[in-house]
Amino acid sequence: MNEEIKIIDVRKNILSDNENQAELIREDLRRKKVFMVNLMASPGAGKTSLIIATLRQLKDQLRIGVVEGDVESTVDTEKILHEGVPAVQIQTGGACHLDAPMINAGLGDLDLTHLDLVFIENIGNLICPAEFDTGSDLRVMILSVPEGDDKVLKYPLMFTVCDALIVNKTDYLSITDFDMPLLHRRVQELNPKMKVFEVSCRTGAGMKEWSQWLLAQVQKKIA
Amino acid sequence: MNEEIKIIDVRKNILSDNENQAELIREDLRRKKVFMVNLMASPGAGKTSLIIATLRQLKDQLRIGVVEGDVESTVDTEKILHEGVPAVQIQTGGACHLDAPMINAGLGDLDLTHLDLVFIENIGNLICPAEFDTGSDLRVMILSVPEGDDKVLKYPLMFTVCDALIVNKTDYLSITDFDMPLLHRRVQELNPKMKVFEVSCRTGAGMKEWSQWLLAQVQKKIA
Repeated sequence: MNEEIKIIDVRKNILSDNENQAELIREDLRRKKVFMVNLMASPGAGKTSLIIATLRQLKDQLRIGVVEGDVESTVDTEKILHEGVPAVQIQTGGACHLDAPMINAGLGDLDLTHLDLVFIENIGNLICPAEFDTGSDLRVMILSVPEGDDKVLKYPLMFTVCDALIVNKTDYLSITDFDMPLLHRRVQELNPKMKVFEVSCRTGAGMKEWSQWLLAQVQKKIA
Repeated sequence: MNEEIKIIDVRKNILSDNENQAELIREDLRRKKVFMVNLMASPGAGKTSLIIATLRQLKDQLRIGVVEGDVESTVDTEKILHEGVPAVQIQTGGACHLDAPMINAGLGDLDLTHLDLVFIENIGNLICPAEFDTGSDLRVMILSVPEGDDKVLKYPLMFTVCDALIVNKTDYLSITDFDMPLLHRRVQELNPKMKVFEVSCRTGAGMKEWSQWLLAQVQKKIA
Protein backbone atom coordinates (compact mmCIF):
# COMPACT_ATOMS: atom_id res chain seq x y z
CA MET A 1 0.00 0.00 0.00
CA ASN A 2 1.26 3.40 -0.91
CA GLU A 3 0.18 4.91 2.40
CA GLU A 4 2.60 2.67 4.26
CA ILE A 5 5.69 3.77 2.43
CA LYS A 6 7.71 6.12 4.54
CA ILE A 7 9.20 8.82 2.42
CA ILE A 8 12.24 10.57 3.78
CA ASP A 9 12.49 14.08 2.46
CA VAL A 10 16.27 14.37 2.63
CA ARG A 11 16.24 18.01 1.63
CA LYS A 12 13.68 18.98 4.28
CA ASN A 13 15.61 17.08 6.97
CA ILE A 14 18.88 18.73 6.00
CA LEU A 15 17.34 22.19 6.17
CA SER A 16 15.63 21.43 9.49
CA ASP A 17 18.85 20.09 11.09
CA ASN A 18 20.59 23.19 9.83
CA GLU A 19 18.00 25.49 11.38
CA ASN A 20 18.34 23.77 14.75
CA GLN A 21 22.09 24.23 14.73
CA ALA A 22 21.73 27.84 13.55
CA GLU A 23 19.45 28.53 16.54
CA LEU A 24 22.10 27.10 18.91
CA ILE A 25 24.73 29.37 17.36
CA ARG A 26 22.42 32.38 17.71
CA GLU A 27 21.82 31.56 21.37
CA ASP A 28 25.56 31.20 22.03
CA LEU A 29 26.31 34.53 20.33
CA ARG A 30 23.53 36.20 22.33
CA ARG A 31 25.15 35.09 25.57
CA LYS A 32 28.57 36.22 24.39
CA LYS A 33 27.19 39.54 23.06
CA VAL A 34 28.59 39.00 19.59
CA PHE A 35 26.72 40.29 16.54
CA MET A 36 27.07 38.23 13.33
CA VAL A 37 26.49 39.33 9.73
CA ASN A 38 26.06 36.79 6.91
CA LEU A 39 27.33 38.54 3.76
CA MET A 40 26.25 37.02 0.44
CA ALA A 41 26.77 37.96 -3.23
CA SER A 42 27.77 36.78 -6.70
CA PRO A 43 31.45 36.06 -7.40
CA GLY A 44 33.31 39.34 -7.75
CA ALA A 45 30.56 41.62 -6.41
CA GLY A 46 32.94 42.93 -3.75
CA LYS A 47 32.37 40.92 -0.56
CA THR A 48 35.99 41.05 0.63
CA SER A 49 36.34 44.71 -0.42
CA LEU A 50 33.21 45.64 1.53
CA ILE A 51 34.42 43.81 4.64
CA ILE A 52 37.80 45.56 4.46
CA ALA A 53 36.24 48.99 3.84
CA THR A 54 33.85 48.40 6.79
CA LEU A 55 36.71 47.25 9.06
CA ARG A 56 38.52 50.49 8.35
CA GLN A 57 35.40 52.53 9.17
CA LEU A 58 34.61 50.74 12.44
CA LYS A 59 37.95 49.52 13.78
CA ASP A 60 38.02 52.11 16.59
CA GLN A 61 34.49 51.34 17.75
CA LEU A 62 34.21 47.54 17.40
CA ARG A 63 36.37 44.43 17.75
CA ILE A 64 35.75 42.54 14.51
CA GLY A 65 36.49 38.99 13.28
CA VAL A 66 35.84 37.28 9.94
CA VAL A 67 34.83 33.77 8.85
CA GLU A 68 35.87 33.43 5.21
CA GLY A 69 34.13 30.86 3.02
CA ASP A 70 35.61 29.75 -0.29
CA VAL A 71 35.34 26.73 -2.53
CA GLU A 72 39.12 26.87 -2.87
CA SER A 73 42.05 29.23 -2.16
CA THR A 74 42.94 31.41 0.82
CA VAL A 75 43.48 34.73 -0.99
CA ASP A 76 40.62 36.53 0.77
CA THR A 77 41.64 35.40 4.25
CA GLU A 78 45.16 36.63 3.57
CA LYS A 79 43.75 40.06 2.64
CA ILE A 80 41.71 40.20 5.88
CA LEU A 81 44.62 39.07 8.10
CA HIS A 82 46.69 41.80 6.44
CA GLU A 83 44.24 44.29 8.02
CA GLY A 84 45.28 43.02 11.46
CA VAL A 85 41.92 41.36 12.09
CA PRO A 86 41.36 37.72 13.19
CA ALA A 87 40.06 35.56 10.33
CA VAL A 88 39.41 31.84 9.83
CA GLN A 89 39.12 30.10 6.47
CA ILE A 90 36.45 27.55 5.61
CA GLN A 91 37.25 25.73 2.38
CA THR A 92 34.17 23.88 1.20
CA GLY A 93 36.03 21.89 -1.46
CA GLY A 94 33.17 22.13 -3.93
CA ALA A 95 30.12 22.92 -1.80
CA CYS A 96 28.25 25.98 -3.00
CA HIS A 97 27.17 27.52 0.32
CA LEU A 98 28.06 27.71 4.01
CA ASP A 99 25.78 26.00 6.51
CA ALA A 100 25.41 26.22 10.27
CA PRO A 101 27.78 23.29 11.11
CA MET A 102 30.54 24.91 9.02
CA ILE A 103 29.98 28.25 10.76
CA ASN A 104 30.02 26.51 14.13
CA ALA A 105 33.42 25.03 13.29
CA GLY A 106 34.68 28.39 12.04
CA LEU A 107 33.51 30.27 15.16
CA GLY A 108 35.32 27.68 17.29
CA ASP A 109 38.58 29.03 15.92
CA LEU A 110 37.81 32.65 16.86
CA ASP A 111 38.15 34.04 20.39
CA LEU A 112 34.56 35.25 20.68
CA THR A 113 35.00 36.70 24.16
CA HIS A 114 37.13 39.43 22.59
CA LEU A 115 34.88 40.21 19.61
CA ASP A 116 31.80 42.40 19.08
CA LEU A 117 31.11 41.68 15.42
CA VAL A 118 31.76 38.68 13.16
CA PHE A 119 31.41 38.90 9.39
CA ILE A 120 30.70 35.69 7.49
CA GLU A 121 31.88 36.02 3.90
CA ASN A 122 29.71 33.40 2.22
CA ILE A 123 30.51 31.53 -1.04
CA GLY A 124 30.11 33.63 -4.21
CA ASN A 125 26.65 32.45 -5.24
CA LEU A 126 23.24 34.18 -5.40
CA ILE A 127 21.23 30.96 -5.06
CA CYS A 128 22.19 28.26 -2.55
CA PRO A 129 23.46 30.39 0.37
CA ALA A 130 20.00 32.02 0.60
CA GLU A 131 18.55 28.71 1.79
CA PHE A 132 20.84 28.13 4.76
CA ASP A 133 20.51 29.95 8.07
CA THR A 134 23.98 30.40 9.59
CA GLY A 135 22.85 31.72 12.97
CA SER A 136 23.57 35.31 11.95
CA ASP A 137 21.71 38.36 13.31
CA LEU A 138 21.65 40.06 9.95
CA ARG A 139 21.69 38.85 6.35
CA VAL A 140 23.25 41.31 3.95
CA MET A 141 23.68 40.94 0.20
CA ILE A 142 25.75 42.87 -2.30
CA LEU A 143 24.63 43.54 -5.85
CA SER A 144 27.33 45.16 -7.98
CA VAL A 145 26.31 47.61 -10.69
CA PRO A 146 27.94 45.65 -13.56
CA GLU A 147 25.67 42.65 -12.77
CA GLY A 148 22.62 44.63 -13.88
CA ASP A 149 19.35 45.87 -12.39
CA ASP A 150 17.35 42.71 -13.31
CA LYS A 151 18.82 40.42 -10.64
CA VAL A 152 15.85 41.02 -8.31
CA LEU A 153 13.66 39.21 -10.85
CA LYS A 154 16.07 36.33 -11.37
CA TYR A 155 17.21 35.57 -7.82
CA PRO A 156 14.15 36.54 -5.75
CA LEU A 157 14.88 34.28 -2.75
CA MET A 158 18.16 36.04 -1.98
CA PHE A 159 16.50 39.45 -2.19
CA THR A 160 13.68 38.15 0.05
CA VAL A 161 15.73 36.66 2.90
CA CYS A 162 18.19 39.55 3.24
CA ASP A 163 17.70 42.48 5.63
CA ALA A 164 19.96 44.85 3.73
CA LEU A 165 21.14 45.30 0.14
CA ILE A 166 24.39 47.02 -0.66
CA VAL A 167 24.60 48.21 -4.25
CA ASN A 168 28.36 48.28 -4.82
CA LYS A 169 30.52 49.69 -7.63
CA THR A 170 28.39 52.80 -8.06
CA ASP A 171 31.47 54.34 -9.73
CA TYR A 172 30.52 52.17 -12.77
CA LEU A 173 27.08 53.80 -13.07
CA SER A 174 28.13 56.34 -15.69
CA ILE A 175 29.26 53.66 -18.16
CA THR A 176 26.37 51.18 -17.76
CA ASP A 177 22.62 51.26 -18.42
CA PHE A 178 21.93 50.21 -14.82
CA ASP A 179 18.66 51.89 -13.79
CA MET A 180 18.91 52.70 -10.07
CA PRO A 181 15.34 53.99 -9.61
CA LEU A 182 14.07 50.81 -11.33
CA LEU A 183 16.17 48.67 -8.97
CA HIS A 184 14.74 50.49 -5.95
CA ARG A 185 11.18 49.94 -7.24
CA ARG A 186 11.83 46.22 -7.82
CA VAL A 187 13.30 45.78 -4.33
CA GLN A 188 10.43 47.76 -2.80
CA GLU A 189 7.89 45.47 -4.49
CA LEU A 190 9.58 42.21 -3.44
CA ASN A 191 10.89 43.08 0.03
CA PRO A 192 9.70 46.47 1.29
CA LYS A 193 11.59 46.05 4.59
CA MET A 194 14.97 45.76 2.87
CA LYS A 195 17.36 48.58 3.72
CA VAL A 196 19.29 49.70 0.62
CA PHE A 197 22.71 51.37 0.55
CA GLU A 198 24.56 52.65 -2.52
CA VAL A 199 28.33 52.42 -2.12
CA SER A 200 31.60 52.24 -3.96
CA CYS A 201 34.21 50.31 -2.00
CA ARG A 202 36.82 51.73 -4.35
CA THR A 203 36.04 55.44 -3.95
CA GLY A 204 34.59 55.11 -0.45
CA ALA A 205 31.30 56.74 -1.49
CA GLY A 206 28.40 55.72 0.76
CA MET A 207 30.60 53.73 3.16
CA LYS A 208 29.90 56.03 6.10
CA GLU A 209 26.09 55.66 5.89
CA TRP A 210 26.34 51.85 5.71
CA SER A 211 28.91 51.58 8.49
CA GLN A 212 27.03 53.86 10.85
CA TRP A 213 23.80 51.94 10.27
CA LEU A 214 25.61 48.63 10.93
CA LEU A 215 27.23 50.07 14.06
CA ALA A 216 23.77 51.04 15.38
CA GLN A 217 22.50 47.47 14.79
CA VAL A 218 25.48 46.00 16.64
CA GLN A 219 25.19 48.45 19.55
CA LYS A 220 21.51 47.55 20.05
CA LYS A 221 22.62 43.97 20.77
CA ILE A 222 25.85 44.39 22.69
CA ALA A 223 24.82 47.41 24.80
CA MET B 1 28.72 -6.21 10.68
CA ASN B 2 29.79 -2.99 9.08
CA GLU B 3 30.77 -4.74 5.85
CA GLU B 4 27.17 -5.80 5.30
CA ILE B 5 25.73 -2.32 5.41
CA LYS B 6 24.98 -1.11 1.94
CA ILE B 7 25.78 2.55 1.65
CA ILE B 8 24.02 4.43 -1.09
CA ASP B 9 26.07 7.36 -2.25
CA VAL B 10 23.18 9.54 -3.39
CA ARG B 11 25.44 12.17 -4.86
CA LYS B 12 27.44 9.65 -6.90
CA ASN B 13 24.25 8.01 -8.19
CA ILE B 14 22.74 11.34 -9.17
CA LEU B 15 25.85 12.33 -11.10
CA SER B 16 26.09 8.90 -12.75
CA ASP B 17 22.41 8.94 -13.84
CA ASN B 18 22.98 12.43 -15.18
CA GLU B 19 26.00 11.30 -17.20
CA ASN B 20 24.06 8.44 -18.76
CA GLN B 21 21.30 10.76 -19.86
CA ALA B 22 23.81 13.33 -21.11
CA GLU B 23 25.38 10.61 -23.28
CA LEU B 24 21.97 9.79 -24.77
CA ILE B 25 21.40 13.46 -25.58
CA ARG B 26 24.84 13.68 -27.20
CA GLU B 27 24.12 10.61 -29.33
CA ASP B 28 20.75 12.04 -30.42
CA LEU B 29 22.31 15.38 -31.37
CA ARG B 30 25.06 13.54 -33.30
CA ARG B 31 22.43 11.80 -35.44
CA LYS B 32 20.55 15.04 -35.99
CA LYS B 33 23.77 16.98 -36.72
CA VAL B 34 23.09 19.59 -34.09
CA PHE B 35 25.95 21.19 -32.19
CA MET B 36 25.25 22.21 -28.57
CA VAL B 37 27.09 24.75 -26.40
CA ASN B 38 26.66 24.86 -22.61
CA LEU B 39 27.27 28.48 -21.60
CA MET B 40 28.01 29.09 -17.93
CA ALA B 41 28.90 32.18 -15.86
CA SER B 42 28.19 34.23 -12.73
CA PRO B 43 24.99 36.28 -12.55
CA GLY B 44 25.34 39.36 -14.73
CA ALA B 45 28.53 38.30 -16.55
CA GLY B 46 26.76 38.69 -19.90
CA LYS B 47 25.42 35.26 -20.95
CA THR B 48 22.32 36.59 -22.70
CA SER B 49 24.26 39.46 -24.24
CA LEU B 50 26.88 37.06 -25.61
CA ILE B 51 24.24 34.77 -27.10
CA ILE B 52 22.50 37.71 -28.78
CA ALA B 53 25.77 39.17 -30.11
CA THR B 54 26.75 35.71 -31.43
CA LEU B 55 23.31 35.19 -33.04
CA ARG B 56 23.79 38.45 -34.93
CA GLN B 57 27.26 37.39 -36.13
CA LEU B 58 26.20 33.92 -37.30
CA LYS B 59 22.55 34.22 -38.29
CA ASP B 60 23.31 33.96 -42.03
CA GLN B 61 25.50 30.86 -41.64
CA LEU B 62 23.70 28.82 -38.96
CA ARG B 63 20.17 28.03 -37.77
CA ILE B 64 20.32 28.66 -34.02
CA GLY B 65 18.06 27.84 -31.06
CA VAL B 66 18.36 28.60 -27.35
CA VAL B 67 17.49 26.75 -24.12
CA GLU B 68 17.24 29.38 -21.39
CA GLY B 69 17.71 28.36 -17.78
CA ASP B 70 16.64 30.59 -14.91
CA VAL B 71 15.70 30.13 -11.28
CA GLU B 72 12.80 32.51 -11.94
CA SER B 73 11.58 35.00 -14.59
CA THR B 74 11.40 34.85 -18.38
CA VAL B 75 13.15 38.13 -19.18
CA ASP B 76 16.08 36.49 -21.00
CA THR B 77 13.88 34.25 -23.14
CA GLU B 78 11.87 37.29 -24.17
CA LYS B 79 15.08 39.01 -25.30
CA ILE B 80 16.10 35.98 -27.37
CA LEU B 81 12.67 35.55 -28.98
CA HIS B 82 12.84 39.24 -29.88
CA GLU B 83 15.84 38.30 -32.09
CA GLY B 84 13.58 36.00 -34.11
CA VAL B 85 15.24 32.86 -32.81
CA PRO B 86 13.46 29.84 -31.26
CA ALA B 87 13.93 29.69 -27.49
CA VAL B 88 12.54 27.58 -24.66
CA GLN B 89 12.53 28.52 -21.00
CA ILE B 90 13.46 26.17 -18.18
CA GLN B 91 12.54 27.58 -14.77
CA THR B 92 14.27 25.58 -12.07
CA GLY B 93 12.25 27.15 -9.24
CA GLY B 94 15.22 27.24 -6.90
CA ALA B 95 17.66 24.69 -8.35
CA CYS B 96 21.10 26.14 -8.90
CA HIS B 97 22.11 24.36 -12.14
CA LEU B 98 20.68 22.65 -15.24
CA ASP B 99 21.06 18.89 -15.54
CA ALA B 100 20.65 16.47 -18.45
CA PRO B 101 16.96 15.61 -17.77
CA MET B 102 16.07 19.32 -17.81
CA ILE B 103 17.96 19.81 -21.08
CA ASN B 104 16.26 16.76 -22.54
CA ALA B 105 12.89 18.32 -21.73
CA GLY B 106 13.97 21.66 -23.16
CA LEU B 107 15.28 20.14 -26.41
CA GLY B 108 11.94 18.35 -26.81
CA ASP B 109 10.35 21.75 -27.34
CA LEU B 110 12.76 22.77 -30.11
CA ASP B 111 12.48 21.55 -33.71
CA LEU B 112 15.99 20.07 -33.88
CA THR B 113 15.68 18.97 -37.51
CA HIS B 114 15.79 22.64 -38.48
CA LEU B 115 18.67 23.70 -36.24
CA ASP B 116 22.47 23.56 -36.50
CA LEU B 117 23.42 25.07 -33.16
CA VAL B 118 21.74 25.14 -29.74
CA PHE B 119 22.95 27.42 -26.94
CA ILE B 120 22.17 26.42 -23.38
CA GLU B 121 22.18 29.46 -21.13
CA ASN B 122 22.85 27.86 -17.77
CA ILE B 123 21.89 29.27 -14.34
CA GLY B 124 24.03 32.19 -13.16
CA ASN B 125 26.42 30.29 -10.89
CA LEU B 126 30.16 29.50 -11.10
CA ILE B 127 29.95 26.37 -8.92
CA CYS B 128 27.15 23.82 -9.34
CA PRO B 129 26.66 23.89 -13.15
CA ALA B 130 30.29 22.78 -13.58
CA GLU B 131 29.42 19.37 -12.11
CA PHE B 132 26.59 18.46 -14.47
CA ASP B 133 27.15 17.24 -18.02
CA THR B 134 24.26 18.45 -20.21
CA GLY B 135 25.17 16.47 -23.33
CA SER B 136 26.78 19.52 -24.93
CA ASP B 137 29.65 19.37 -27.45
CA LEU B 138 31.37 22.38 -25.96
CA ARG B 139 31.44 23.96 -22.51
CA VAL B 140 32.05 27.68 -22.57
CA MET B 141 32.31 30.03 -19.63
CA ILE B 142 32.23 33.80 -19.39
CA LEU B 143 34.26 35.77 -16.88
CA SER B 144 33.44 39.47 -16.87
CA VAL B 145 36.18 41.98 -16.11
CA PRO B 146 34.42 43.56 -13.08
CA GLU B 147 34.45 40.13 -11.34
CA GLY B 148 38.24 40.25 -11.07
CA ASP B 149 41.22 38.22 -12.23
CA ASP B 150 41.31 35.97 -9.14
CA LYS B 151 38.29 33.82 -10.05
CA VAL B 152 40.51 31.08 -11.54
CA LEU B 153 41.84 30.44 -8.02
CA LYS B 154 38.44 30.47 -6.36
CA TYR B 155 36.33 28.46 -8.82
CA PRO B 156 38.87 26.05 -10.32
CA LEU B 157 36.39 23.33 -11.33
CA MET B 158 34.52 25.64 -13.72
CA PHE B 159 37.81 26.76 -15.32
CA THR B 160 38.89 23.11 -15.58
CA VAL B 161 35.80 21.62 -17.25
CA CYS B 162 35.32 24.37 -19.85
CA ASP B 163 36.80 24.27 -23.34
CA ALA B 164 36.70 28.01 -23.89
CA LEU B 165 36.77 31.12 -21.72
CA ILE B 166 35.25 34.38 -22.88
CA VAL B 167 36.52 37.40 -20.98
CA ASN B 168 33.64 39.84 -21.40
CA LYS B 169 33.27 43.56 -20.65
CA THR B 170 36.80 44.42 -21.80
CA ASP B 171 35.50 47.98 -22.19
CA TYR B 172 35.71 48.16 -18.37
CA LEU B 173 39.44 47.35 -18.33
CA SER B 174 40.55 50.98 -18.12
CA ILE B 175 38.67 51.59 -14.86
CA THR B 176 39.62 48.39 -13.01
CA ASP B 177 42.82 46.80 -11.76
CA PHE B 178 42.04 43.58 -13.68
CA ASP B 179 45.40 42.12 -14.78
CA MET B 180 44.83 40.40 -18.13
CA PRO B 181 48.34 38.88 -18.50
CA LEU B 182 47.98 37.46 -14.96
CA LEU B 183 44.60 35.97 -15.87
CA HIS B 184 46.10 34.31 -18.95
CA ARG B 185 48.93 32.86 -16.85
CA ARG B 186 46.51 31.50 -14.25
CA VAL B 187 44.33 29.90 -16.93
CA GLN B 188 47.38 28.46 -18.67
CA GLU B 189 48.54 26.85 -15.43
CA LEU B 190 45.17 25.29 -14.57
CA ASN B 191 43.84 24.33 -18.00
CA PRO B 192 46.37 24.80 -20.80
CA LYS B 193 43.91 23.54 -23.44
CA MET B 194 41.41 26.31 -22.70
CA LYS B 195 40.83 28.68 -25.61
CA VAL B 196 40.56 32.29 -24.39
CA PHE B 197 38.74 35.14 -26.14
CA GLU B 198 38.60 38.77 -25.03
CA VAL B 199 35.34 40.46 -26.00
CA SER B 200 33.00 43.30 -25.22
CA CYS B 201 29.41 42.44 -26.08
CA ARG B 202 28.57 46.12 -25.77
CA THR B 203 31.16 47.52 -28.18
CA GLY B 204 31.41 44.35 -30.33
CA ALA B 205 35.17 44.13 -29.81
CA GLY B 206 36.46 40.57 -30.25
CA MET B 207 33.09 39.15 -31.29
CA LYS B 208 34.28 38.22 -34.78
CA GLU B 209 37.19 36.06 -33.54
CA TRP B 210 34.95 34.18 -31.09
CA SER B 211 32.11 33.72 -33.60
CA GLN B 212 34.38 32.49 -36.38
CA TRP B 213 36.07 30.01 -34.04
CA LEU B 214 32.67 28.75 -32.89
CA LEU B 215 31.47 28.48 -36.49
CA ALA B 216 34.50 26.32 -37.33
CA GLN B 217 33.70 23.98 -34.39
CA VAL B 218 30.08 23.64 -35.53
CA GLN B 219 31.03 23.03 -39.16
CA LYS B 220 33.40 20.20 -38.18
CA LYS B 221 30.40 18.37 -36.73
CA ILE B 222 27.59 19.17 -39.16
CA ALA B 223 29.61 19.02 -42.40
